Amino acid sequence: MALFNFVLFYCINLGQWYELAPITAKYFTIFEKFFSMQRESTYREALNDSDNFLPSISVDCVIFGFHDAQLKVLLINFKNTDIWAVPGGYVLLQEDMDDAARRVLWERTSVQDIFLEQFYAFGKRDRVCKEMQEEIFSGLGIPLAADAWVSRRFISVGYYALVDFSKVIPNPDDHLNECGWFRLDELPKMIFDHADILQKALTTLQSRLDYKLVVSNLLPETFTMSELQSLYETILGKKLLRTNFQRKMLGLEILERVEKRFSGRAHKAPYLYRFDMTESE
Amino acid sequence: MALFNFVLFYCINLGQWYELAPITAKYFTIFEKFFSMQRESTYREALNDSDNFLPSISVDCVIFGFHDAQLKVLLINFKNTDIWAVPGGYVLLQEDMDDAARRVLWERTSVQDIFLEQFYAFGKRDRVCKEMQEEIFSGLGIPLAADAWVSRRFISVGYYALVDFSKVIPNPDDHLNECGWFRLDELPKMIFDHADILQKALTTLQSRLDYKLVVSNLLPETFTMSELQSLYETILGKKLLRTNFQRKMLGLEILERVEKRFSGRAHKAPYLYRFDMTESE
Repeated sequence: MALFNFVLFYCINLGQWYELAPITAKYFTIFEKFFSMQRESTYREALNDSDNFLPSISVDCVIFGFHDAQLKVLLINFKNTDIWAVPGGYVLLQEDMDDAARRVLWERTSVQDIFLEQFYAFGKRDRVCKEMQEEIFSGLGIPLAADAWVSRRFISVGYYALVDFSKVIPNPDDHLNECGWFRLDELPKMIFDHADILQKALTTLQSRLDYKLVVSNLLPETFTMSELQSLYETILGKKLLRTNFQRKMLGLEILERVEKRFSGRAHKAPYLYRFDMTESE
Repeated sequence: MALFNFVLFYCINLGQWYELAPITAKYFTIFEKFFSMQRESTYREALNDSDNFLPSISVDCVIFGFHDAQLKVLLINFKNTDIWAVPGGYVLLQEDMDDAARRVLWERTSVQDIFLEQFYAFGKRDRVCKEMQEEIFSGLGIPLAADAWVSRRFISVGYYALVDFSKVIPNPDDHLNECGWFRLDELPKMIFDHADILQKALTTLQSRLDYKLVVSNLLPETFTMSELQSLYETILGKKLLRTNFQRKMLGLEILERVEKRFSGRAHKAPYLYRFDMTESE
């Protein structure tokens, strides 16, 4: 185990020394996949040791899942409690914050290689609830010192993503938590201000719906206007007028019409569209 | 001076002890206006003393000024250097981050009571440039210890505002820096990643232009479609088609038509509009 620790430590630091930040995350992935037993001890160490982490900063990842006209969110449960949270963690001293968000998401859910975008930093002075934190650590069986660094004040930077949840297989560390997909109208009890974080992520997602990167990985390469409308209606949580929707979408000039869909009654076949990726952001 | 220090300290802490966060900023304003000589020493102490501040977090405020079809940005200059920056500072341990942004802006520019909105957290691991920091401290005549906390890594949370620059009278502390309004195509040499911070603020501002709060304090209570279009064109940095602009604006349903403007040739008088404040965000 000491050898594995050494190898992992060496590889992480190699990435830092040679300024290989962009591939540090890949080193993490390769080695942590190989030595997955590392994860629990790494997590426990992180909770009690501030030497490797930036103080006062955490990241939280709100992962929205869309499939078959349903919108859900991925939450993790702290062992032996009924408290849930969006997956989160800390930033290594020598790690870009965006890389930390990707690493943390993978460490806690095994979800990786998805488009994560920052949406807001949560900085209220009283956002961490000491009693809830004690309950969680008690459930984990990890002693929480009175002056533990994780009990101090943290500003949390939120990231969100929108994925096809049928393609994500969360595989949490059995010793720490489980994860699950929740409907937005059936959320469980959540830690600290995580209900607010989730709500802000949803509001941001809704306001950025025209931002094609977010939606383009949820649809097949080509799709009908009706399929696109269904996606929008689910995320916005309301019905849209078909003619207005079509006019608005075409007006954005992000869609390219490709061909007529085959149908037994050709004159009723709907047009197929795809996102025009040649346009700049 | 010791008495002033004590009074200021007491009042700030009174706000914290009694959980009066919303009015803490007002206490700051009243007392610092009264004892404005406090500012320099407070600033110097902040630079060398981490006890009162959250480590690893800073806030930076990008203030866009609009007047007479010109868009500018408010920057501060570090004494005895040619280095400029957007006004920034640190978060007190017992202070909401949003309050810190308002306080910092006032402390460094005397600009206050404006709508500030968070737009992005900057978390690259190498964003602080040690050499530039040494140059600034040397110019200020303040010794910078090798292990000074301000030289460590900071994640900076950016805030932006859009104001009528003819109504803002920056009044920087003479001992530390000066401030000035710059055209976006004539920016000076800027500290660290502040050019990126400014650019990201501008992109965000442009993408949120339909967000009425941002623009509504730059126009008179009632305005013509042409005046509104001029504002949009300046901020977006491009000409817009009149008919398209009018259709889009009216489609947003945030404008209310109020009356015909008086004119010698009544049939050519343009309509006047105002923002419909009854609508929810």
